[in-house]
Amino acid sequence: MTRAFPSTALAADIAAGLARVETLFESQLSSRFPAVNDLCRHVEGYRGKMLRPTLVIVCGLAFTDEGEPLKAEHDIIAATVEMIHMATLVHDDVLDEAAMRRRGETVNSLRGNETAVMLGDYLISNAFHLCSRAGDPALNLRLGEVTNTLCEGELVQLSRRHDLALDANTYFEIVRRKTAVLVGAACELGARLAGASVSEAQSMRSFGEGLGVAFQIQDDLLDLLGDEATVGKSIGRDLEKGKLTLPMILHISQTTGAERHAALRAIEAKDGAALRTLLVRSGSIDAARARAIEFVLESKRGLPATRRAHAHELLLKLADGVVARDS
Amino acid sequence: MTRAFPSTALAADIAAGLARVETLFESQLSSRFPAVNDLCRHVEGYRGKMLRPTLVIVCGLAFTDEGEPLKAEHDIIAATVEMIHMATLVHDDVLDEAAMRRRGETVNSLRGNETAVMLGDYLISNAFHLCSRAGDPALNLRLGEVTNTLCEGELVQLSRRHDLALDANTYFEIVRRKTAVLVGAACELGARLAGASVSEAQSMRSFGEGLGVAFQIQDDLLDLLGDEATVGKSIGRDLEKGKLTLPMILHISQTTGAERHAALRAIEAKDGAALRTLLVRSGSIDAARARAIEFVLESKRGLPATRRAHAHELLLKLADGVVARDS
Repeated sequence: MTRAFPSTALAADIAAGLARVETLFESQLSSRFPAVNDLCRHVEGYRGKMLRPTLVIVCGLAFTDEGEPLKAEHDIIAATVEMIHMATLVHDDVLDEAAMRRRGETVNSLRGNETAVMLGDYLISNAFHLCSRAGDPALNLRLGEVTNTLCEGELVQLSRRHDLALDANTYFEIVRRKTAVLVGAACELGARLAGASVSEAQSMRSFGEGLGVAFQIQDDLLDLLGDEATVGKSIGRDLEKGKLTLPMILHISQTTGAERHAALRAIEAKDGAALRTLLVRSGSIDAARARAIEFVLESKRGLPATRRAHAHELLLKLADGVVARDS
Repeated sequence: MTRAFPSTALAADIAAGLARVETLFESQLSSRFPAVNDLCRHVEGYRGKMLRPTLVIVCGLAFTDEGEPLKAEHDIIAATVEMIHMATLVHDDVLDEAAMRRRGETVNSLRGNETAVMLGDYLISNAFHLCSRAGDPALNLRLGEVTNTLCEGELVQLSRRHDLALDANTYFEIVRRKTAVLVGAACELGARLAGASVSEAQSMRSFGEGLGVAFQIQDDLLDLLGDEATVGKSIGRDLEKGKLTLPMILHISQTTGAERHAALRAIEAKDGAALRTLLVRSGSIDAARARAIEFVLESKRGLPATRRAHAHELLLKLADGVVARDS
């Protein structure tokens, strides 16, 4: 992800916030059983972009006067959304039979699917427990809604694997659910906890959801086109697992005859090289990229004024970073 | 499970409570996606003993005057603990590669591990969301603790698979965590929501935890000795998956020489028939059964006086039923 360059004071506030979140994340997961701690330490190695906790903190700071601290609930929610995200990574790697994540072996590859399933459950459970520590039932209810929606997205996606008739609207619906609602909630709750109005919090949620959709399109493009050494995780999993992504869907819906059939054959044969050639030639890769950029632009346009101007600037840069990344 | 025969009024109150819980359970899981609803209907077919929601309701009624209604929170907690239990069944079947549950095919067998993993996640998420609907942060915090403990128990058990040095204390620690704490919380929260004192709620929790340990020992005995047609689910999974259970542990620790070695060989060879013969002959089966009965007796002895006498009687009968069951 492109690094944004916020003001020095803002950068220091964000760095301090993320450091508190890391401490909270680790202390929440610490167990008296070494077997559990070893697994959690492995998962902490997955931490990379910290996009979701960063958004909680930046959206919180955006509605906080300079010099004023964030609330303790900001740290809790930031660590909670990261923990939910980690749980989905661990279970996604089981679903995708992925072997690599953040340049290391996945839990399922290293310790078997059984441990990965149960470790993901431990992370989900701890995420809810941590959120409950804030003592605010509205936060629990909101994050419960988010994870219900997220799981529905994953279940619908599973039910549509190998379905060559999957259309772009359904793809966007799946992506909104499985990825965007959590990013949206990170922005919304960060702002709301800092005292943003209902309408401001709602705008921040829309901002985050747009970013989330763009993020997933970019992720899907990297899975299709990326180089494993650069991306740092297993790629080609979508084709392998029969998940149609946006460039494939656009190609199938916008080409005819031999061009269309060749792509369908390449998808069925899981022939990534042939598929890439076809999708580049038909312009479907570029079209998918353009859709991701459109989502980012729409998010940026809808970003409300914030109390701290530098935070507004930084959020715009973070939005650009979602599509300008190769890992 | 042996059916208890409570007073007519109490029986009617329990039946009405369980009917409300079923409605709440189904409405919580209802999705606008048919693919999700189909899976949830399948899981609802797993519902059998309803032990945990029954305990929430009976322990609630035990501290409620006859004629007085239970709280809405009772229904929420009863449906929540059942949903948590269902989630563990779905993920356990993935871990155990089990094909049969409640005389039907398991989700993993029918729809693949991937769908089973994600369906379990959907159930966990909905359990927390449902609990949050009660609006009481203490309930969320308590159930989050319970599920953290439950997952730790499963992770420790996984880390000790194929470990012939597993001792009885560690076995009881695993069982307490993975099974007993949820049963204990069902009893505790049922009582607490009905206005039981802290000490009464604590006693109800101990009562439930003892039942939970006995329940798991009995489950392990059925897995070792039961007949698949009677038990109604895949059996022999513990041996297959390298999980040492109480009769095996007792045999290994209490026999020597050829008798001990023959059992170790049978465990390593996953030879159920040979192992059963050895464990019966050494008295280890009977000893494990005796331990389960001891846990039940201890639970019954610690059961506090309740406001409604019939509920007290029924809880004693439910306790007996935990070990007097062949399915």
